[in-house]
Amino acid sequence: MYRTHTCGELRIQDKGRKVTLAGWVQKSRRLGGMTFIDLRDRYGITQLVVEADAPALLVETATSLGREFVIQIEGEVVERQSKNPKMPTGDIEIKTDKINILNKSITPPFTIEDESDGGEDIRAKYRYLDLRRGPLKKALTLRHKVAHEVRNYLDAKGFLEIETPYLIKSTPEGARDFVVPSRMNPGQFYALPQSPQTFKQLLMVAGYDRYFQIVRCFRDEDLRADRQPEFTQIDCEMSFVEQEDVLNTFEGMMRTLFKNVLDVDIPNPLPRMSWYDAMDRYGSDKPDVRFGMTIHEITSAAKGKGFGVLDGAAYIGAICVPGAAEYTRKQIDELTEWVKRPQVGAKGLIYIKVNEDGTYKSSIDKFYGPEDLEKIASAAEASKGDLILIMSGDNIRKVQTMLGVLRIEMGGRLGLRDPKVFAPLWIVDFPLLEWDDETQRFYAMHHPFTAPKPEHEKWFYSNKKEDLERVCANAYDFVLNGTELGGGSIRIHNADVQKRMFEVLGIGAEEAEYKFGFIINAFKFGAPPHGGLAFGFDRVCSLFGGSDSIRDYIAFPKNNQGRDVMIDSPSQIDREQLDELRIDIRADE
Amino acid sequence: MYRTHTCGELRIQDKGRKVTLAGWVQKSRRLGGMTFIDLRDRYGITQLVVEADAPALLVETATSLGREFVIQIEGEVVERQSKNPKMPTGDIEIKTDKINILNKSITPPFTIEDESDGGEDIRAKYRYLDLRRGPLKKALTLRHKVAHEVRNYLDAKGFLEIETPYLIKSTPEGARDFVVPSRMNPGQFYALPQSPQTFKQLLMVAGYDRYFQIVRCFRDEDLRADRQPEFTQIDCEMSFVEQEDVLNTFEGMMRTLFKNVLDVDIPNPLPRMSWYDAMDRYGSDKPDVRFGMTIHEITSAAKGKGFGVLDGAAYIGAICVPGAAEYTRKQIDELTEWVKRPQVGAKGLIYIKVNEDGTYKSSIDKFYGPEDLEKIASAAEASKGDLILIMSGDNIRKVQTMLGVLRIEMGGRLGLRDPKVFAPLWIVDFPLLEWDDETQRFYAMHHPFTAPKPEHEKWFYSNKKEDLERVCANAYDFVLNGTELGGGSIRIHNADVQKRMFEVLGIGAEEAEYKFGFIINAFKFGAPPHGGLAFGFDRVCSLFGGSDSIRDYIAFPKNNQGRDVMIDSPSQIDREQLDELRIDIRADE
Repeated sequence: MYRTHTCGELRIQDKGRKVTLAGWVQKSRRLGGMTFIDLRDRYGITQLVVEADAPALLVETATSLGREFVIQIEGEVVERQSKNPKMPTGDIEIKTDKINILNKSITPPFTIEDESDGGEDIRAKYRYLDLRRGPLKKALTLRHKVAHEVRNYLDAKGFLEIETPYLIKSTPEGARDFVVPSRMNPGQFYALPQSPQTFKQLLMVAGYDRYFQIVRCFRDEDLRADRQPEFTQIDCEMSFVEQEDVLNTFEGMMRTLFKNVLDVDIPNPLPRMSWYDAMDRYGSDKPDVRFGMTIHEITSAAKGKGFGVLDGAAYIGAICVPGAAEYTRKQIDELTEWVKRPQVGAKGLIYIKVNEDGTYKSSIDKFYGPEDLEKIASAAEASKGDLILIMSGDNIRKVQTMLGVLRIEMGGRLGLRDPKVFAPLWIVDFPLLEWDDETQRFYAMHHPFTAPKPEHEKWFYSNKKEDLERVCANAYDFVLNGTELGGGSIRIHNADVQKRMFEVLGIGAEEAEYKFGFIINAFKFGAPPHGGLAFGFDRVCSLFGGSDSIRDYIAFPKNNQGRDVMIDSPSQIDREQLDELRIDIRADE
Repeated sequence: MYRTHTCGELRIQDKGRKVTLAGWVQKSRRLGGMTFIDLRDRYGITQLVVEADAPALLVETATSLGREFVIQIEGEVVERQSKNPKMPTGDIEIKTDKINILNKSITPPFTIEDESDGGEDIRAKYRYLDLRRGPLKKALTLRHKVAHEVRNYLDAKGFLEIETPYLIKSTPEGARDFVVPSRMNPGQFYALPQSPQTFKQLLMVAGYDRYFQIVRCFRDEDLRADRQPEFTQIDCEMSFVEQEDVLNTFEGMMRTLFKNVLDVDIPNPLPRMSWYDAMDRYGSDKPDVRFGMTIHEITSAAKGKGFGVLDGAAYIGAICVPGAAEYTRKQIDELTEWVKRPQVGAKGLIYIKVNEDGTYKSSIDKFYGPEDLEKIASAAEASKGDLILIMSGDNIRKVQTMLGVLRIEMGGRLGLRDPKVFAPLWIVDFPLLEWDDETQRFYAMHHPFTAPKPEHEKWFYSNKKEDLERVCANAYDFVLNGTELGGGSIRIHNADVQKRMFEVLGIGAEEAEYKFGFIINAFKFGAPPHGGLAFGFDRVCSLFGGSDSIRDYIAFPKNNQGRDVMIDSPSQIDREQLDELRIDIRADE
């Protein structure tokens, strides 16, 4: 071993101890003939001092050290003259007798500090240097801890971690697969799994009634910011359970994570909200409940004053932004422009200021007198000082969604979205089916194996559209601070229910056989009732770390073009490889 | 929850308890009007009984149950009339009041028993049914346990599990890569990692001084029996360590595994054997030391009697097979044929029987008198009753290897290779370089980043072939019962040593830059001294389970053609997928 201690562990109690340390030179400086060196490793930073009267060779070595040199030193722990209370090792320094340069370093392209001077691109290229910085070390350490706690919790609950294959089969449903040409089977391809969904259901058929896996998944999607072509899931499935059992088990897991990783107590039991409530009140199926500012329907209060935009709308909704009655015209104009951007898609924004003196000022004063405005304010449950923001339209869910986006924005602007505050909850009672106007058919909101609630069976077997729209699924999402961290469902295990589901979705017997034949066949051999869920592990880690970016929580992430700029991948391969695989790359058209 | 208890947990102490169980019908039988049902789940089997005087509907349901039906039952725990001491639940049965058929099953294509009547192919196709069998449940449960113990041990030692990417870059060294065409970067490919070697070394450069990962690896090799295109490694790396630190750490890990998984104590410290000793005495770099029968060099004892085959050989070696002096001529002929098979490749086999009465009988009696034979027997350290088997040749290692293969075979035939006996050891002091006669150059025995032993530096910088052949590497293998379970090395962190290594291997600066430029560049920024190793996780599990087959320890393995016959993969993909990827499949030539 090149060291007796790490750079993070020596304290004043160690005074007088002879130690050997090894690490990287964070920085060095001379002061009155003395040389001070900050030595860094994974565990912290310890200050070294080489006295002015030390042997000349030692002083020379000490002064020759560049940033990021790797050194091994020997010396004695002494009390510092001027202590640094910000550093855990700040009470001591090492009076250094010996320096052994283990490796030199050329000058790094950016500073290895908590706040680096390097831009995103250069840091991505030299990821192995960026990973030396404190925030990334903290992120990866947290990730390890979260994974370890997940495993301990699930192991204690009798779950088995079972590895499922990565070289599987391309399926015609869902997102785009990454495929892998098979050399041994020319013209044929494996696919990388988008999730182990099929395999975990097979494991239920096989009797492994509590399965989990922390597993990589792959999706060849056009990448949005913060989407990765490969990502990690905590994937779980249980047999002989009802929805309540799944929720309790994984609520317990999340409670343990919050406690053991962050020392945060979350409510027991966790709040649950129906999908309908979430949409009505938050305009989102992943509501951020750290703050109020909920949506109020004001349809009846706002109609009938001759203002065509509202009179003609099927739905009118409002949020009340506290303290924003002070907003200037310019601020409101900016907000109006903001909601008109295609990302939100609103046609406009109506406002009513509820002034502190009880008067109103609105963009619809022409049509609405003070009493009319008061009626609306009352319907919106506005208080003095609130700015009421109103949207309307014919598609209720669409208007609610736009109001929800606006709500999140205003919450952010008002500083109500503190990443150190955690407000987890379950969203339950999702609709089973979504009607698509364009194709005039139903789609499965989750997937075609999600079970309808048994108590909604009568609607499920009805042929009326409005009945089918009412059927809820035994599906659930775990939502934290406006982000869906996980979700799942109770699966259909009954062949008749499955048949009916395909019928409702307009999937014929032949198509069902083609798309899902394999799993349907497996289910004929005694499938138990089962259900499960999956958590987005990268996202769990980033939210636990109080960050918006999952990239900081992945050791070697890819950029928005799906490239690893550090290793410069993907890249061309050799002609011989293509020959062996018996594939050709098409010439540019 | 569909059950109050599992099918493995009820005991005589639970007598009188009302319980609900769920599981699969293992079998049912009628006996004097009563119906007995064996109900199975992951945890065991519990016997249900439906009395002859039970309600007619219940009796009817009970008698209607087919094999592998999934049922839920309610009843009372009662003491059995005739107990079954072989079953943990054998003292009780459930007097059943209610049976709820959760799912029917069509007749499975083979029996779901510990010893199935199904052949390998049919069981592979219906893997989800095969996985219901006891031995596979035990195997996967053991695998979970081993992984969990590994993680707990390494976590406690300060290791971080860090996930490295699966979509990486094809490298021109090593085995064949699986590649993944990139849709977003047409004409370019990712590769699936053969191991995270580069990334773990980068993590050392990044300062994560104790890394591990239980990780999938991929190799597109022509598959031998029991090789899988995807397999799992326990991959580990440490910084600021010497070989001794790595060996101690992972010896500790294996000791913990043996203790906590198998309740087996392995020696502390573990035996170590140099590669030279292993080759000389066992003819293998992965010796099975569960039994002796070691190789003895008898070159000088056996030469000079006018027998050309031996007189002309550079090396003559022998093993003594205890008790085999009784072998008939036929048995010895069969052995001779066995060593002449191409898998062994011997030209022939000389034998000397050391009879119990002190006389000798050999295949070389024409040239060797009793005293000559006694001299050889003495050199071979033979005892009375031994059969001495002798091979010779010019390539010492080749002869030793053939004798080693013969030794393993004889050990097997004599029942000396009990899978319940565990004899782990380290093999150390591997040669750094291997001379290849054909290309007249040296190759790295492990890989070009393996460090030479510092004490052999003078030979490493010599230009004499015999000096370079003497250089040992700081490399090590963990061997158990004749199988290499893991191996690794201390890596070169010094740029000068690396440069010399490339020089010795005849890799020019340009080639080095092309093949290894990326990692060489990263090493310029302060690489710490580091080393590590990787264990073959599938193999660790199978040996711990006392099995030769890793396939039983993988939930969904592939066959020897790299196919998953259950999901029928690899398979053809859609024309549109090829279009999007901008690749074509070549027409058959």
